[in-house]
Amino acid sequence: MSRTAVRVLVNGYGVIGKRVASAISRQPDMRIIGISDVVGDWRIKMAKAKGYDVYASMPEKVEGMKRGGVDVEGTLEDLLSKGAVDVVVDATPAGVGARNKALYGRYGVKAIFQGGERHGTAGVSFVAQRNYVEALGEQFVRVVSCNTTAICRVVGGIHEKLGVKKARVGIIRRAVDVWESSHVGIMNTVVPELRVPSHHGPDARTVMHDLDMVTMAAKGSHNLFHLHMGMLEMEDEVTGDDVIDVLNREPRVVFVRGSDGVEGLNSIFEIARDSGRPRGDLYEIPVWEDSITASDDGREIYLMWATPNESNVVPENVDAIRAMTELEGKAERSIAITDERLGIVKKLY
Amino acid sequence: MSRTAVRVLVNGYGVIGKRVASAISRQPDMRIIGISDVVGDWRIKMAKAKGYDVYASMPEKVEGMKRGGVDVEGTLEDLLSKGAVDVVVDATPAGVGARNKALYGRYGVKAIFQGGERHGTAGVSFVAQRNYVEALGEQFVRVVSCNTTAICRVVGGIHEKLGVKKARVGIIRRAVDVWESSHVGIMNTVVPELRVPSHHGPDARTVMHDLDMVTMAAKGSHNLFHLHMGMLEMEDEVTGDDVIDVLNREPRVVFVRGSDGVEGLNSIFEIARDSGRPRGDLYEIPVWEDSITASDDGREIYLMWATPNESNVVPENVDAIRAMTELEGKAERSIAITDERLGIVKKLY
Amino acid sequence: MSRTAVRVLVNGYGVIGKRVASAISRQPDMRIIGISDVVGDWRIKMAKAKGYDVYASMPEKVEGMKRGGVDVEGTLEDLLSKGAVDVVVDATPAGVGARNKALYGRYGVKAIFQGGERHGTAGVSFVAQRNYVEALGEQFVRVVSCNTTAICRVVGGIHEKLGVKKARVGIIRRAVDVWESSHVGIMNTVVPELRVPSHHGPDARTVMHDLDMVTMAAKGSHNLFHLHMGMLEMEDEVTGDDVIDVLNREPRVVFVRGSDGVEGLNSIFEIARDSGRPRGDLYEIPVWEDSITASDDGREIYLMWATPNESNVVPENVDAIRAMTELEGKAERSIAITDERLGIVKKLY
Amino acid sequence: MSRTAVRVLVNGYGVIGKRVASAISRQPDMRIIGISDVVGDWRIKMAKAKGYDVYASMPEKVEGMKRGGVDVEGTLEDLLSKGAVDVVVDATPAGVGARNKALYGRYGVKAIFQGGERHGTAGVSFVAQRNYVEALGEQFVRVVSCNTTAICRVVGGIHEKLGVKKARVGIIRRAVDVWESSHVGIMNTVVPELRVPSHHGPDARTVMHDLDMVTMAAKGSHNLFHLHMGMLEMEDEVTGDDVIDVLNREPRVVFVRGSDGVEGLNSIFEIARDSGRPRGDLYEIPVWEDSITASDDGREIYLMWATPNESNVVPENVDAIRAMTELEGKAERSIAITDERLGIVKKLY
Repeated sequence: MSRTAVRVLVNGYGVIGKRVASAISRQPDMRIIGISDVVGDWRIKMAKAKGYDVYASMPEKVEGMKRGGVDVEGTLEDLLSKGAVDVVVDATPAGVGARNKALYGRYGVKAIFQGGERHGTAGVSFVAQRNYVEALGEQFVRVVSCNTTAICRVVGGIHEKLGVKKARVGIIRRAVDVWESSHVGIMNTVVPELRVPSHHGPDARTVMHDLDMVTMAAKGSHNLFHLHMGMLEMEDEVTGDDVIDVLNREPRVVFVRGSDGVEGLNSIFEIARDSGRPRGDLYEIPVWEDSITASDDGREIYLMWATPNESNVVPENVDAIRAMTELEGKAERSIAITDERLGIVKKLY
Repeated sequence: MSRTAVRVLVNGYGVIGKRVASAISRQPDMRIIGISDVVGDWRIKMAKAKGYDVYASMPEKVEGMKRGGVDVEGTLEDLLSKGAVDVVVDATPAGVGARNKALYGRYGVKAIFQGGERHGTAGVSFVAQRNYVEALGEQFVRVVSCNTTAICRVVGGIHEKLGVKKARVGIIRRAVDVWESSHVGIMNTVVPELRVPSHHGPDARTVMHDLDMVTMAAKGSHNLFHLHMGMLEMEDEVTGDDVIDVLNREPRVVFVRGSDGVEGLNSIFEIARDSGRPRGDLYEIPVWEDSITASDDGREIYLMWATPNESNVVPENVDAIRAMTELEGKAERSIAITDERLGIVKKLY
Repeated sequence: MSRTAVRVLVNGYGVIGKRVASAISRQPDMRIIGISDVVGDWRIKMAKAKGYDVYASMPEKVEGMKRGGVDVEGTLEDLLSKGAVDVVVDATPAGVGARNKALYGRYGVKAIFQGGERHGTAGVSFVAQRNYVEALGEQFVRVVSCNTTAICRVVGGIHEKLGVKKARVGIIRRAVDVWESSHVGIMNTVVPELRVPSHHGPDARTVMHDLDMVTMAAKGSHNLFHLHMGMLEMEDEVTGDDVIDVLNREPRVVFVRGSDGVEGLNSIFEIARDSGRPRGDLYEIPVWEDSITASDDGREIYLMWATPNESNVVPENVDAIRAMTELEGKAERSIAITDERLGIVKKLY
Repeated sequence: MSRTAVRVLVNGYGVIGKRVASAISRQPDMRIIGISDVVGDWRIKMAKAKGYDVYASMPEKVEGMKRGGVDVEGTLEDLLSKGAVDVVVDATPAGVGARNKALYGRYGVKAIFQGGERHGTAGVSFVAQRNYVEALGEQFVRVVSCNTTAICRVVGGIHEKLGVKKARVGIIRRAVDVWESSHVGIMNTVVPELRVPSHHGPDARTVMHDLDMVTMAAKGSHNLFHLHMGMLEMEDEVTGDDVIDVLNREPRVVFVRGSDGVEGLNSIFEIARDSGRPRGDLYEIPVWEDSITASDDGREIYLMWATPNESNVVPENVDAIRAMTELEGKAERSIAITDERLGIVKKLY
C-alpha cells in the first residue's frame, strides 16, 4: 500500500457499498478509511467484524446504532471536516445521494454517486470502458446502474465497432435484493414497469450519447441477476461472428453457452460462486454466445445477456476513483489494474 | 341443445382440454361426447365426477387407467370407428397431435390441433378474429398457441387498422402449468430461450401472413400468465389514443390500469378469479392501458399485455369448431355466440 | 329469499370479505345490504360491477374513493344509524376490527370479527362444528383464523372422538395473499415466526378449551394455502384407520391422496379450480389420507393437511350469522344449509 | 503439505463433491489427486479451470466428456488400480455410491459415502462431534445427510448434556439445488413427504443411537437451506438459558438473532456470503437464539435452526478422512484442524 494511497469512505454499507469496500481494499493505490451507515443490525456488525471503522451517516443515528450494539467511531461529517477523506463512494439508497451532495461540497471532498441518482446530480455518468476520460479530475461522478452498465458494455461495444442504428432491449429485472427478500419481494408474478419506455434507455445515453436506445422492463419473481434481450438494428450488414469478435475483445464481457449446460440465471450464479470471488460475485457481463443471431439480411442482431446486479458496477467505482483523483489517466491502465486485483477474466470456465 | 348439435370429443384432458370441454358444454350448438386420456389420476377422476364419459386415447392405456380407479368406457378408436364423433379437439402434449392425425384421417373425423403442433400438421392456423374464413369447412385446423393468439389479437388488431412495419416483442413466459409445478418448475431464475428469435414470431405469420414480427422469450419464475412487451414500428404516425381506439373495438382484448392498482400478473389473476369464470379463467387479453405510449415522432408504439396461457385459446377452439363444421359462416357471429356463452366482456371491472 | 332475511353488511372487501359476501348471497335466509371499504381501486370497482352497494368505512375516505372512480352510497355509520343492518361481518385488517367494535356497539348491531382480532374483542371464538352453541344469540363473535379453523376441524375432530393428549403441529404458512404478491412478498426464503410457540396453539384453545396444543410456524415462498404437519400424542392406542374413520365423518374435511397424483399445495389448488367453486375456492380442509400414520405403539398419530387460507373460514362466517341471530339453533342444521348452498362436499374427486 | 499427505479422489463433482474438494485442498495433511464424473459440461470445465485432474467415473463416459470439451486423464478404475488413491469421497447421486462400493472394495481403497446412501452401505454413519471414534480405521464410512447432521449437532448436543426424552422436528426443505433450479424445481407450492415420519428421524438414530426422534418434512418453494422447527420433550426441567449454554459450547453451531435483523433463510445466506467463505458457504448450523423457548413447566424446549444444505457436511467429510486413515485419533483435534483451515467460527458477526 502506497503511503499516498487515496483515502476512501463508503457511505451506505448495503449491497453495493459493501462490495465496493471489499474491492477497494484489494487495490494497491487506495484504502478504506471507514464506512458509514444509519442502522445497527447484523450487516453493520459484520462490517465491524471485517475490521472497518464505522461512522454514522447522520448525527441523529449514532444513538440507535450504539443501541443496536455497534461501536460507532463518530459521524461522517466529523470525519470529512478533519480532511481525513479524499473520496466518498456514496452507495446510499436512491435519492439520498443527491441530498448528501451539499455535505460533500461543503468539505471539498470528491464523491461518486450510484445509478439511483440522476445524471444531473454529478454531471458525469460513467462506464470505464466507454468514457473514462470524462471523469478525469472531476469532483462528482455517477457510476450508472447495473442495467445501464451492462448495456454500455455489450451494446456499447457493438455500437462503437459495428454501428448500431437502433437498439431495442427487453429487461427482466430481479425484483429485490437477497437481504430484503424476506419482506418486500414479489411472488409468482411479473410486475411491469408501466412508465414505458423504461428509464434504462435514456440513461444509457448519458454515457453513450449517440445511441438510439429504447428499453422496456418488468420485474420477475427472482432475486438475483437481470436478463436482457437485445434486438439491434445495425448500420451495416453484420454476422453473428462479427459480434462475437467484438465482444471477445471487450473488457468485462464473458461468454457462456447453453451447449455447456448454462441454462439460466441460476446456472450463472452457480458459476459465479464456483469462480471463487468473494460473495459469489460476478463483475463481468455474461453473454450467451449461442444466443447471438443475425437476421437473414444481416441488418439485425439478437442476443441475450445476464446482468449481475449486485456486483457488475463494483469495478466501475474503483476506476472512477482513479479517474477523478487522476491516479491514472488512461482507461486501459486503470481497467487492467482493477481487473487484475479483482480476478476479472475473459473466460469463466 | 339442438338435436343436431356437433358431437365433440376432447382428446387430452389437461390444462387446455378440460377448459375446452367446459366451454363446449356451454354452447347451444355443440356437445361433449366424452373425453379421452392416458392416465387415471385425480384429474381424470375429476372428469368422471363432472359427468364426462372417459375413453382411453390408446388401447394399451385402458388397464392402467382402470387400475388407477377410473371407469373407462372404451378406446378413442372404438368411438371414432362407430361414427359417434364429428370433431376431435386434440389437446394432447406437443407432438402427439401430429401422430394422432392419421387416426383422425382414417375415420374421416375433423380435428383441431393446438399450438404445440406445427402449422403443417393442419395446414390452417387459426385466430377467430383474424382469419375465421380460412377454417371454413376444413378437416384439420390448428388453434395457435396462447402467445401467438395474444399477439394476433393485440398486434394483429393494430396492424390491420394502423399498419405495423416491424413488431419486436419480448416475452416473459410462465415456466410451467400449475398442476405440474410440484416437479418440473424453475426456481429463482430466468431461463432464456436460446433459439433466437423465438418461434412465436414466425408462428404469428401463419395467421397474419404479412406481419414482420420478431420475438425473444425467456421463462420467468412464476406459473401463471405470460407478459409481453411490444415495441412496434408503425407505417405512419400514430398516437397512443389511436391504439387505444383500435383495441377498444377489438374483440377479446380488455384494458387494465396500473392507476387502478393492477400492479402485476398476480393482480390480473385475482381479477380473473373475482370475475366469476370457472377456474378463475380469463379468455381476453388484458392490455395495460397506461403502458401504451407513442415515441416522440409517432413512429413507434410501446405497450404491455398479459397472456392468460391456460384459457385464452379456449374461445378459439369453440369458434374453430363452428368454422370447420360450417355451423356459422361469419366470424363475427360465431365470436358473438361464444363470447355470450362464456361471459367474455370488454370491461373486467 | 325470505322477506325476513337477515341483513348483512361486509366491512372490508378484501380476501375474506369478498368471499363472505359471495357466500351470503347464496344463502336462503340472509342478504347483503352492501359492502364498505376505504379504497377505490379495481377491487372496489369489481364490487360495484357485481352489483353491491358500496359505502365508505370511514367518512374521511369518501372523497378518495370517489376520486378513484367509485360511486359511494354513503358512510358505514350512516347506514348503521338508520337501522338498516342486522349483522356486520368485519373483515378489516387485523386490529381494525377491535377499533370498530365501539361503532357497532353504539348502534346495537351484531358483529362478527375475524381471526386477526384477539379472543377478548368478541369473547366468543367460533368454529361451527366445535362450539356453535357458544355463539347462540351473542352480539359479538370471532371466527378464528384459517389456521386455527383447520386445526379445530382436524385435530379437534380427532380429539373429540379419540382423545388427543398433546398436539404438536408445524405450520408452513403462505407468505402473503395473491393480490398483494406484487409488493410485500418473500422470495426464495423461509421466514420463521420467532415468537415460539406461535399463536396458533393458544388460539385453538379459545375454541377447544381442553386441547394441549403447541405450534411452530414459518412463512414459505408461496402465496396459496398453508401446510400443517401434525404430530399427535394420543390418550389411548389408535390406528391410522381409526383416524380415517373419524375424519370421514367430520364435516368440512376431505381426503386427497398422493397415490392419485396429489403431490403438493399446487395440486390441491388445481383441484379446487376444477371443482367449480367461485374463485377456485376450497371450503374444506384437504387431508392427505396416505400421510396418516400411527406409531408402532399406537400412541402417536402423524398426518398432514392443507389449509385453504382464503376460503376455509367463509362457511364459518355464514354459520356464525345463523347462531348469533338464532336463525337456527342447531349446528348440524346450519352446517347442512351452508354446505348445500356452497357446494361443500365430502369427496372432491 | 506433508509428503505423506493422504491422497483423496472425489468421485462426483456436484454440489457436495466440489465443496469437499475445495475443503480438502485447504488441509495440511491431505491432498486431492483428482476428481471423477460422468459429464462434460461447464461444471467439469470449471474443475479443470481450477487445476484438478479429471477422470471418468465409468469407462463408457470418457467419449462423451471429451466430446463436451473436457480433457479426461483416464478412468477412475485405472487410477484406483495403480494404487494412487488412499480415500475416495463418493459424492455421486443417491444410490450410485452403493453400486460403487464393490469397485472400491476390489482395490482395497477406503471410501466415504454421503447421506443419500443407506446406513448399511457403510455400516458406520458419522457426525464428527458425536461419534468420531466409530470411524477410526474403518474402510467405509457414511457422512449423514445435511439434515441429519444438523439434527445431530443441535438436538444431539442438547441430548448429550441435558437429556432429550422425545424430539419432534418439522422440516421445511429446500426443493432442489441452485444448479438444477432451471428444470426440476417446484413453484408456488409446498410438497409434503407423504412417507410419514420422514426418514430423517430414523437416520439420526444411526448416529445418536438412543435418541427418540420423529420428523415430518415438506419441500418449500426455495432453493437454499432447510429450516428445522424443533419441539423437544426433556428428561428434566430446563430453561432456555440452559440450552443456550449448551449450544454455545457445541462446535459448528452458531447463533443468529431476529433482533439483529436476521429475518429468514435469505438473511443467513447473505451473512454467509459476507463471511468470505468460498461460494458463500456456511459450515455451521445457525440457530435463532431468540427462538429458544422453554415451556412453562420446563419440560419442553422449542427452537428453530437453518441447515445450510450445500456445505454443512463438508467439514464432516474432512474429519471422516482423518478418522478412517487414523491421521488423528481424537475428534477434538481433527475438528480443531478442520475448523481452523475452513474458517469455521462460533460467531458469524
